[in-house]
Amino acid sequence: MTVWLVGAGPGDPGLITARGLDLVRGCEALVYDRLVAPELVDEAPAGALIYTREELDQDEINELLVRLGRDDLEVVRLKGGDPYVFGRGGEEAIALAEAGVPFEVVPGVSALASVPAAVGIPLTHRGVADRVRFHTGHAAAEGAEGETIVFFMGLRNLPCVVDELLAEGLDPSTPAAVISRGTRPDQEVVVAELADLPEASHGLPGPALVVVGDVVAVRDRIHGAVLQEFA
Amino acid sequence: MTVWLVGAGPGDPGLITARGLDLVRGCEALVYDRLVAPELVDEAPAGALIYTREELDQDEINELLVRLGRDDLEVVRLKGGDPYVFGRGGEEAIALAEAGVPFEVVPGVSALASVPAAVGIPLTHRGVADRVRFHTGHAAAEGAEGETIVFFMGLRNLPCVVDELLAEGLDPSTPAAVISRGTRPDQEVVVAELADLPEASHGLPGPALVVVGDVVAVRDRIHGAVLQEFA
Repeated sequence: MTVWLVGAGPGDPGLITARGLDLVRGCEALVYDRLVAPELVDEAPAGALIYTREELDQDEINELLVRLGRDDLEVVRLKGGDPYVFGRGGEEAIALAEAGVPFEVVPGVSALASVPAAVGIPLTHRGVADRVRFHTGHAAAEGAEGETIVFFMGLRNLPCVVDELLAEGLDPSTPAAVISRGTRPDQEVVVAELADLPEASHGLPGPALVVVGDVVAVRDRIHGAVLQEFA
Repeated sequence: MTVWLVGAGPGDPGLITARGLDLVRGCEALVYDRLVAPELVDEAPAGALIYTREELDQDEINELLVRLGRDDLEVVRLKGGDPYVFGRGGEEAIALAEAGVPFEVVPGVSALASVPAAVGIPLTHRGVADRVRFHTGHAAAEGAEGETIVFFMGLRNLPCVVDELLAEGLDPSTPAAVISRGTRPDQEVVVAELADLPEASHGLPGPALVVVGDVVAVRDRIHGAVLQEFA
């Protein structure tokens, strides 16, 4: 009845989330990527339908997920790393949302931080680095366009941060969001144009994640879908 | 006998990794942060020593972990999110390494990507954003100093990427690393000064994570510790 977009983690099968593993063990259909550990595929029930995406392009994957979801199956779409970090999970989510198929996203351990951790590199070591940029290998020109900026912060400094970004030349109408107490039962989210964000989020409790960039607007295309159950 | 620095995930107890949960269930001592879900603390065995870090500063935590490790206990240090992403796990790792206490890091789901995912924001949606920067709330001046740059890429383009970074003004001696097939049994890592990286990593198989910035040098202070078992 639901398509679960599940992050399988960076490779080591022990690094899938506990919930993700439960879902694999209870699924009726499993669609997995080449980079997913075979041990995780083996966790699916003996009677489950198993699909590797090896020979399917992204459109075909989207169609397969919609079809399986409409067949009223419990479907797990197992993706390397985290579905939403260089994982094209957003495209699958949009296809499902547009088809009216219920889906949820279960985040995974992204390779971006865990792979450096595995070799002893703490990406944001205090006193050494207080920010980090992730790129794909074919990143083009510099600048705010096409860049997502994430701040992990208390909200007291938000007006200063927004002023700095505007001074750097960011468009005041850039889509932006504040997510207060994310993934907790009392999570709240506010979306606004960058210039309006401090006023729109006034009074929200911290800690908060602030996201600035055009990806925030993608949310409008997914909105309404149940995305995650909170504990 | 080992201190495990375990990421508890972004809040939802189902988002701890399968291995992390197994370690909590088998530990003899548990040291946890305020942001860790109480359901996870309850998973520790009835006889385990339980410490909340509420009233301890970072130095005291470091000392506690060293002392428990020297007492030959199986110790789990449960940290919100991922230990190495704005988590100060690097400081604990250095304290343990310097004291000669064996430890391993078990990455977790970082709030940085999973919290936006939970509200329908895919951070790196294709065609919208091909790179992402993470900051702490008190990020100061712009520029490469204090910034970690991460590329997730095939290695064919590495010479071009390095040329671009040097043209942007990065110091040719900036510490840099290539991690090939990270967290897999055949993982390889090469560390070099930025200018020498393409030659030093020539012939490594992809996919690879390329990390540029002073955090790479922190690895020298942790080196020698067993960091993670690979499947």
